[in-house]
Amino acid sequence: MRIKEFVKTFRPYKVLEGNYRIWLDKNENPFDLPLEIKEEIFEELKRVPFNRYPHITADPLRKRIAEFLGIDKENIIVGNGSDELISLILKLFDGEHIVISSPTFGMYGFFAKFEGINLIDVPMDENFRLQNVEEYAENARALFICSPNNPTGNTQDREKIISVLETGAPVVLDEAYVEFAKGSNVDLISEYDNLIVLRTFSKAFGLAGVRVGYAVGSEETIDHLHRIKPPFTLDSISMKIAGFMLDHYDLVKRNIDYIIKERERIYRKFKDYAYPSEANFILMKLNAYEFLLEKGIVVRKLGGRLTGHIRVTVGKREENDELIAALKEFVEGIK
Amino acid sequence: MRIKEFVKTFRPYKVLEGNYRIWLDKNENPFDLPLEIKEEIFEELKRVPFNRYPHITADPLRKRIAEFLGIDKENIIVGNGSDELISLILKLFDGEHIVISSPTFGMYGFFAKFEGINLIDVPMDENFRLQNVEEYAENARALFICSPNNPTGNTQDREKIISVLETGAPVVLDEAYVEFAKGSNVDLISEYDNLIVLRTFSKAFGLAGVRVGYAVGSEETIDHLHRIKPPFTLDSISMKIAGFMLDHYDLVKRNIDYIIKERERIYRKFKDYAYPSEANFILMKLNAYEFLLEKGIVVRKLGGRLTGHIRVTVGKREENDELIAALKEFVEGIK
Repeated sequence: MRIKEFVKTFRPYKVLEGNYRIWLDKNENPFDLPLEIKEEIFEELKRVPFNRYPHITADPLRKRIAEFLGIDKENIIVGNGSDELISLILKLFDGEHIVISSPTFGMYGFFAKFEGINLIDVPMDENFRLQNVEEYAENARALFICSPNNPTGNTQDREKIISVLETGAPVVLDEAYVEFAKGSNVDLISEYDNLIVLRTFSKAFGLAGVRVGYAVGSEETIDHLHRIKPPFTLDSISMKIAGFMLDHYDLVKRNIDYIIKERERIYRKFKDYAYPSEANFILMKLNAYEFLLEKGIVVRKLGGRLTGHIRVTVGKREENDELIAALKEFVEGIK
Repeated sequence: MRIKEFVKTFRPYKVLEGNYRIWLDKNENPFDLPLEIKEEIFEELKRVPFNRYPHITADPLRKRIAEFLGIDKENIIVGNGSDELISLILKLFDGEHIVISSPTFGMYGFFAKFEGINLIDVPMDENFRLQNVEEYAENARALFICSPNNPTGNTQDREKIISVLETGAPVVLDEAYVEFAKGSNVDLISEYDNLIVLRTFSKAFGLAGVRVGYAVGSEETIDHLHRIKPPFTLDSISMKIAGFMLDHYDLVKRNIDYIIKERERIYRKFKDYAYPSEANFILMKLNAYEFLLEKGIVVRKLGGRLTGHIRVTVGKREENDELIAALKEFVEGIK
């Protein structure tokens, strides 16, 4: 019995645990579903048979997402979080490498390693804009664009996204945070067969604990993804809850508006250190991780090119008040 | 954009849909959770934050399973169904091929293809006993033993399992149906570091719609599986429900006893055509798939070496009564 050498190079993915008061580290939505909404969901769940396998390709939810986006269910695949879909996409296409632009979401690199694919990093410029990724399109299994980008919060120009699509290589546009941004590029799927857009219920929809993501793409791509997708990865309950929230988008929208307003409030106070954001978090050039942690506020400490930066998730008003007060104190201290 | 040739060789995994009365095709537990149990679960779920990510390695559930089995949580990894764990295990070890013994559960072959690994089939003998699989242990990434075996229902002798373990190659012992059998071999993990036992909440626990499986193995194996496991694949709600059922094992046990009793009742009536079973289904040498379907009873039609056989899940008493009546009619017809 020999464990593969490559397995030993993986570090366990660790998250901080402990009794902290305010968690602004995982880009979660600060609002749990209201109790009366949960109770309505439970009412529906009484009729969901826990003992029966879920629909094999989660069609009831695919249909509801399709209606919500005004497209066909044949253009949608649902997964156990969008992570599952990233891993499937890497299996789908020929090609020697994937292209990412750092700093960006770590899971693209995780899955490239997981699938044994070369990773080409074409770092973003100083304003976190994509550079000459088109030059690496030949023989690429996929080019990843995260917009709004995690952890920087900015979006990429539509013209640039189109320029990357024009290479003809598979392009994965991760729109996990798009509901907090000015606009989406999901409409481009009608023009570009090589585009796959990733979406999630974990952020704006407030369902990180429920684990539902989806991809939008051409009928051919989605059909082939379904062929290699292990069956039944999305459970009946998660499916029901995600569908329910689509039917209650007014509630989701209210939280989005709240979070955007709070984001701008925090941003204005720390303009000198913060980057503009179209997501539910803000990147700040403040080496304040330990300082905040001591006050019971957990944020994300960044490394590499962003050493000395933190990523702060927008929380509830009172949490943000505490964050603002602590950061003011920190900024006073370094002045 | 080129879709890999190997993807095109996958057929979409299809299941029959439609308005049939009795579903005995997927080895599901016929009993949904009683309403009062669901209501107790919903009471607990009120306090589960849907907006927060689940525990990254599902530790609250790992601990409860560990207590249930009387082992350490370090010996347990939880997955989105045991399917996810099969796929991870295939990434873990060096080796050129996996070994299966047909007829058996189709997902081993699916994941071998998915991971691009050679599949060596050492078919079982006429009594569905393992043959000389030990001879293929050298350079094997894993040897799969399904006991009780799906779709034949029989178990493998402990001596034979030990003989395979003695080769030192990784052995995956799939005990998905073990609660319906006379005994388990999970205790062998204390003696054999190369053993990984798969278990599921989908069958005896009646939670096929909830998607929770787990693997038991050496601390080293489990630690390495966690390193390559994508984070957060098990949602907070499924975790809670599985844990809840461990605390209500009396209810689970009652259903198991019921199913075993019904299985024996069906078996006795069709002894001439049925194989003895230690699972929640029975293999029958009866070409009755279409006949039963016309009566609104769905069973599993088998192919390959088992062409002309059906696999019948044990249902509720009244469902089994209908099955028995229909099969009697079928048997009369072929006499």
